[in-house]
Amino acid sequence: MLSWKKYTFQINYLKKMMNEEQKIIKKYFSPIAKNKESLGLINDAAIIYKKKLVVSTDMMIENQHFDKSYDPKYLAKKLLRVNLSDIAAMGAEPYGYTLNISLPKTKHISWIQRFVIGLREDNKRFKLKLFGGDISRSSKIFLSATIFGVIRKKVHDNSLAKEGSQIYVSGFLGDAALGLEIQKKKKINDLINNSTKEYFLKKLYLPEPQIELGRSLLGLADFCTDISDGLEVELSRVCENSNLQANIYLSKVPVSNKAKKVFKVLKSKKNDIWDRVLFGGEDYKLLFSVRKEKEGLLIKKIKNIHKIGFFKKGKGIYFLDEKNKKKNFKNKSFNHF
Amino acid sequence: MLSWKKYTFQINYLKKMMNEEQKIIKKYFSPIAKNKESLGLINDAAIIYKKKLVVSTDMMIENQHFDKSYDPKYLAKKLLRVNLSDIAAMGAEPYGYTLNISLPKTKHISWIQRFVIGLREDNKRFKLKLFGGDISRSSKIFLSATIFGVIRKKVHDNSLAKEGSQIYVSGFLGDAALGLEIQKKKKINDLINNSTKEYFLKKLYLPEPQIELGRSLLGLADFCTDISDGLEVELSRVCENSNLQANIYLSKVPVSNKAKKVFKVLKSKKNDIWDRVLFGGEDYKLLFSVRKEKEGLLIKKIKNIHKIGFFKKGKGIYFLDEKNKKKNFKNKSFNHF
Repeated sequence: MLSWKKYTFQINYLKKMMNEEQKIIKKYFSPIAKNKESLGLINDAAIIYKKKLVVSTDMMIENQHFDKSYDPKYLAKKLLRVNLSDIAAMGAEPYGYTLNISLPKTKHISWIQRFVIGLREDNKRFKLKLFGGDISRSSKIFLSATIFGVIRKKVHDNSLAKEGSQIYVSGFLGDAALGLEIQKKKKINDLINNSTKEYFLKKLYLPEPQIELGRSLLGLADFCTDISDGLEVELSRVCENSNLQANIYLSKVPVSNKAKKVFKVLKSKKNDIWDRVLFGGEDYKLLFSVRKEKEGLLIKKIKNIHKIGFFKKGKGIYFLDEKNKKKNFKNKSFNHF
Repeated sequence: MLSWKKYTFQINYLKKMMNEEQKIIKKYFSPIAKNKESLGLINDAAIIYKKKLVVSTDMMIENQHFDKSYDPKYLAKKLLRVNLSDIAAMGAEPYGYTLNISLPKTKHISWIQRFVIGLREDNKRFKLKLFGGDISRSSKIFLSATIFGVIRKKVHDNSLAKEGSQIYVSGFLGDAALGLEIQKKKKINDLINNSTKEYFLKKLYLPEPQIELGRSLLGLADFCTDISDGLEVELSRVCENSNLQANIYLSKVPVSNKAKKVFKVLKSKKNDIWDRVLFGGEDYKLLFSVRKEKEGLLIKKIKNIHKIGFFKKGKGIYFLDEKNKKKNFKNKSFNHF
């Protein structure tokens, strides 16, 4: 049995930080953002200019979100896709972005050349326009992008679930978390083959913003958000904001066959699996809920989505095992309830 | 006589960096920003969404743009005002902004409390809305904002001057550079009194974005830009982009009485004065040019502006002394021509 203490520690640290970030936003920034555009700072993006545009912004910082081994080409793509994922969650159409780049002096030109290749490729792929930006120097690499999407008729402007609604996710969870372990040269590297490694690294480096799906869900979903910080974190936010309880069938949470194989090889304890699937971030799938009466239309219209549970009166998340019993995870810090 | 070598070195370093930034943008980013919104990346902001909005973004990084002694309240204001100055240069009306904040763990809460006070005050003063943002951790403080302005009928979408047009600036230059020397505890501190120090520090910490002026110049000015990087840098850009030569009467460049007094006390060499007035940045006044036939209307409509020269066929900037002779500054790196 491998020890995952370090990995769990890292997840706890990130999780604590994200909770702290949420608290800080609520306590200090929400009171100065009481405008209709901000949507109370609980949505994936703001809706500005007569409900015509959505705007979102995200940072990527060296040693915090990536390390030196990261190819600048993939950094550029990840930066855009992380931001595009917010556009997808709003059901908007990608439009353009502004960019802030700050670099150590030593890696200037060659770094920028690789970075620009990534931007160019994803600009084309996602029909994105580079509007402008700012370049500076710093001891560590610092990147941020502000992205714009155009609203066509409708937008996911509601971040609240409804009682009785069914909870869906749009793809496998946990793959990016395994990618992160591979990238960080954890023991997992000695146990799996190169093509499997590449599969997980690709999930980490090149998430697919689910733009078409986000738009297809307009008028169908109660709310729609992207899973950037892990299912448990995102769902907890929705529960808290909606004042509802989420009930999740663990057996229904979609896990890729490749991840299942890895968990087998690792002979992980079950909780180690859930550390990655429920608490690991960066998969950028969509999480949404649909009222029962709309499910027929949903299933007819949209493929490759997975029903994982439902909302009811109450608080927090109940993760249910095969016997429909509530499963408590060892690590209490994972559970708000 | 005081030695200003260190100061000059710093200016040279910043200047070199800014030149490098311009080159990098031209060579690597302009080719991937061939959309009408970006305005070729040579303007103060992009014009997006059917010419309805302007967008600009700027960063402020610890040890690069400010040091630890900086009060977070003033940092917040400066971040907003630096961005607002771009909105002013476009002749747009302030609308709102997104924010990226990355902080060392140690200064989290108390720092944010002060920072938010600054945001709140300037949100109110400039009718700005906080749309959203992102908080993270890093070893040094990193801040960026992306700001939006609404276009009412017209906008300064042209960054080119016209042959024969008269060159104007909208206020004193060099005050912020002196503020920077005071802030950096240079020898100047021992030679001037506290109220004078405060005057210059205020110019550095709290620049006034000239929003009303920028809008008044719509339809009058050929181009309009804010002087963030120093008169020489901004004017050189305009000359290069417009393929024209700027002729500047040094005696006409506006310098505050307080700055004149300081230069007297410092017994500076004349070139040291110009280091600050022509090459010092962060004054955030507007630089614009007006065709002769529009000058009557300009002077009637707008006060407190200073005519400093004119454009003619040629290249680069000619700084002219009292005898209308071209003055060459010692430090060649200051001169592109």
